[in-house]
Amino acid sequence: MNQTVPPNSDDTSFGAETRPNTTDIRRVRSNPDYWYPVAWSRELKPGKTIGTRYAGQPIALVRPVDGPIFALEDRCAHRQVPLSKGVVAGSSVKCCYHGWAYGRSGRCIDVPYLGKGKLPNGVRTYPCREQNGMIFVFPGDPEKADSVPLAPQLARADSPAYKTRYFGRTVGCHYSFMHENLMDMNHQFMHSKQMGQMKPRFLGQKREPGLVEARYSFARTGGKQPFGEALIFGERRDVSEKFQHRDVMTIRTEYPYQTLRIQTGDEDPVMDLWIVYTPQSADELTNRTFGLLSVKRPKIPGILDMAWPLLVAFTERIFAEDREIVELEQNAWRELGGDHNVEVFPVINALRALLVECGIPPASESHA
Amino acid sequence: MNQTVPPNSDDTSFGAETRPNTTDIRRVRSNPDYWYPVAWSRELKPGKTIGTRYAGQPIALVRPVDGPIFALEDRCAHRQVPLSKGVVAGSSVKCCYHGWAYGRSGRCIDVPYLGKGKLPNGVRTYPCREQNGMIFVFPGDPEKADSVPLAPQLARADSPAYKTRYFGRTVGCHYSFMHENLMDMNHQFMHSKQMGQMKPRFLGQKREPGLVEARYSFARTGGKQPFGEALIFGERRDVSEKFQHRDVMTIRTEYPYQTLRIQTGDEDPVMDLWIVYTPQSADELTNRTFGLLSVKRPKIPGILDMAWPLLVAFTERIFAEDREIVELEQNAWRELGGDHNVEVFPVINALRALLVECGIPPASESHA
Amino acid sequence: MNQTVPPNSDDTSFGAETRPNTTDIRRVRSNPDYWYPVAWSRELKPGKTIGTRYAGQPIALVRPVDGPIFALEDRCAHRQVPLSKGVVAGSSVKCCYHGWAYGRSGRCIDVPYLGKGKLPNGVRTYPCREQNGMIFVFPGDPEKADSVPLAPQLARADSPAYKTRYFGRTVGCHYSFMHENLMDMNHQFMHSKQMGQMKPRFLGQKREPGLVEARYSFARTGGKQPFGEALIFGERRDVSEKFQHRDVMTIRTEYPYQTLRIQTGDEDPVMDLWIVYTPQSADELTNRTFGLLSVKRPKIPGILDMAWPLLVAFTERIFAEDREIVELEQNAWRELGGDHNVEVFPVINALRALLVECGIPPASESHA
Repeated sequence: MNQTVPPNSDDTSFGAETRPNTTDIRRVRSNPDYWYPVAWSRELKPGKTIGTRYAGQPIALVRPVDGPIFALEDRCAHRQVPLSKGVVAGSSVKCCYHGWAYGRSGRCIDVPYLGKGKLPNGVRTYPCREQNGMIFVFPGDPEKADSVPLAPQLARADSPAYKTRYFGRTVGCHYSFMHENLMDMNHQFMHSKQMGQMKPRFLGQKREPGLVEARYSFARTGGKQPFGEALIFGERRDVSEKFQHRDVMTIRTEYPYQTLRIQTGDEDPVMDLWIVYTPQSADELTNRTFGLLSVKRPKIPGILDMAWPLLVAFTERIFAEDREIVELEQNAWRELGGDHNVEVFPVINALRALLVECGIPPASESHA
Repeated sequence: MNQTVPPNSDDTSFGAETRPNTTDIRRVRSNPDYWYPVAWSRELKPGKTIGTRYAGQPIALVRPVDGPIFALEDRCAHRQVPLSKGVVAGSSVKCCYHGWAYGRSGRCIDVPYLGKGKLPNGVRTYPCREQNGMIFVFPGDPEKADSVPLAPQLARADSPAYKTRYFGRTVGCHYSFMHENLMDMNHQFMHSKQMGQMKPRFLGQKREPGLVEARYSFARTGGKQPFGEALIFGERRDVSEKFQHRDVMTIRTEYPYQTLRIQTGDEDPVMDLWIVYTPQSADELTNRTFGLLSVKRPKIPGILDMAWPLLVAFTERIFAEDREIVELEQNAWRELGGDHNVEVFPVINALRALLVECGIPPASESHA
Repeated sequence: MNQTVPPNSDDTSFGAETRPNTTDIRRVRSNPDYWYPVAWSRELKPGKTIGTRYAGQPIALVRPVDGPIFALEDRCAHRQVPLSKGVVAGSSVKCCYHGWAYGRSGRCIDVPYLGKGKLPNGVRTYPCREQNGMIFVFPGDPEKADSVPLAPQLARADSPAYKTRYFGRTVGCHYSFMHENLMDMNHQFMHSKQMGQMKPRFLGQKREPGLVEARYSFARTGGKQPFGEALIFGERRDVSEKFQHRDVMTIRTEYPYQTLRIQTGDEDPVMDLWIVYTPQSADELTNRTFGLLSVKRPKIPGILDMAWPLLVAFTERIFAEDREIVELEQNAWRELGGDHNVEVFPVINALRALLVECGIPPASESHA
């Protein structure tokens, strides 16, 4: 068995042809009518404010000493300097420059040198929630915020049976490269120095509205099992391929989030990853990754905590390789002035279609 | 008294509205028919040449061993490389590359490998003067140079009753932000860490052709008087507001220069600042600040000299805060693609009108 | 004798006028139908691949453990990431990301997870040769590659009577500035700190299809003879001008290469330089210089090897001065938005005409 054949694929376009690209996927903007994480909770101390971004929109997050956090447009109405450079006073934030003050609703409630009756307009406010160590905003239509669920299950962050790593960084590429990278497990080839030689077998795909899912199994064909992997799966001495392929990896893009689970049969997953790529710059060609990686605790108590630094280092090396390659893809896109992806793997073409459908077309198209 | 009310204002537009912005003030070019400092005298040694800039125009300053300095376009007529990389020989400067020589008038007086009868055209020359440790050029119509006074009084640099600090640096913003920053004393809020809490009271404004002036008094409402301020004003133990408000700060933009004076009644000012913001890049979105800060010597001889390093450090911290905020304003302007200032303070609107009137409209408008 | 008069010039345009510039020489693209060096042989180890550039085209050079090197477009057909990040396997290179493999012809020969019958298209291949420590590619029409000689004689790299230095670096300017710099020996003025004062005498020029040549002699008019020069020419104690002018320097641009030879009468040259400036960025406003500098071994054995480090340091200082000035020329071109060269030296005007004729007109003109 030398190929990853898609045995259950209902997609007939498998082969070397690409579909006509009417829309350049790297120009598709993310759909703002979802909840996006913009900061870790620990970054925002009580009585402080910090500045973050969603797709070029600067956002000031404010945590009063008492009461819940709030999120405002990070530009003072007066001179457009960041409110996140300002001072938190009670449930308001005062601009650092001339002291204009804004409440939770974004309304300007004080200009120290101006009569109260003639206060200027305020700034935009964003629906804002805090969950599992992350601060989310809803950058789209605020009327929809309450009816849109924050996210599907956030890995196993709430379960004592798991230990969860919170990780992230800024990556210089469009979010679509991130989704494609994770879902196409044929890129295991790239990680062979870290992982040894792993041959993926594609088991099938699922497509539902707003969702694409790929399933794989793996067989080790060379190299030693790395410690980080052994920690997650337990050591595998048995080399029969049948046995090797017993674990199933399920990768799902449930727009705009992505998850990856590894499980054997109906058991609880040994690993459960939740990850999202919040666009940073206005062209959305950079993203900030927020990831939660939950690993099932083995039966021996404490061993996972002891080994945690090794697992962190292992996943960091993997992530560094992924980051380099997606930034090289983005760089090629810039040089070529557009997307030249020749995709031969049906599930990735399904994923690309999903990202285009769920996203917002480029400005030039949306005017047409 | 909780507001800075403009008691003498004849401006009726006070309030949250902005005037229709027909011209984006950040695109208004500085008027070249004035004298602008482009270097400190100490930067240019005898027999040397240095390169400076005014609004994207490269300027070579040349100081012969004998005779006054002169200023040429800093591009050799031959291959446009900087003459300021060249060699001063007598009253001429030779290009470093092939040795083409230019005199004080900008005329090409020698090409070492060419007959004298057929010398090529030379380069532009700028009217140039040296005063109070600064080198000024007149980048506009040279016919007007003699009739335009170099500058109003340069602080108190010539007075033995004062000690004067010469300071400056490059700031990444349009010069208009600098004028607005200094004239709007409500921004004392930003310096409260350095200065304690000072409440400004607006006393009135004056508008004449080419000039806008604002007058303030101050009351300390919290925090300790900083040492640097005590040095300038003497210690203030009396906390009655009437007494506190006895000093008057007068800030004036007399195009293109700006001054700030603090004085009590008709006495000589305790502080006298002269400052100008010479545009650097062709888009004028950077400037090089030249400032002269004169402080009246107290009666005890020597105390000001002893305390000078503390005063320098104090003013540097203030200037660093100002620099950060005006660069943040410029940054917001870039991101938003234009000026969104919502100005509610009449004297600043008067200042903005002055800067637009005295400056040169953006190229696109001037063609209309 | 105070000028470099062109005694044999048949060019009548000598003087301060420039010809009408119908084409901006700095926008003329290099002609791809020549062999260009893109790397030193020593950079590419057996079983490895490296990435290089010609005029914005990324090129992967591959050296199998057995067999000759080959050159491919440095973008995988799949996702356009560099093949030079990949793995060499036999006579093929596998992309680092998903393992797509390409042979010497650029054909895609394997996608590990795809059936053999439906392989996607491959990538472009470049004719590629290795000679005298350099790797050359032919970026133009591959049909012409065999009939175009790789280069005229590469200095004296093959001669045991000479010692040859291989040198190069990236320079931030259009290749035309490099040709002009070397051919106009009046720029000796710039090197007077390194070389002392040398007065060039122009002896004449030659123009043939694809070729411009300038001949000079030199007289020392001041300063000491530098050691590096003495090493090449032998010490010169005789100061009679006639004697000084006995060495002839011949500089030739034989498109796209340049050579500089110094010889006395019909003797073998004491110095023989071959140099080429391979465009790097797509706008061709940067180049990578590849130079071979051959120096004739003096009669005393070993003295040249002993003194080699001094000669290297001497030539590096000269080259650093040249590099700075051509980058300043390029910088002025950018600021002024075009070429403003006022050329008065006929052989340089002939050289400029040659470079325009042999190159490719700017895109906007070629569409006309």
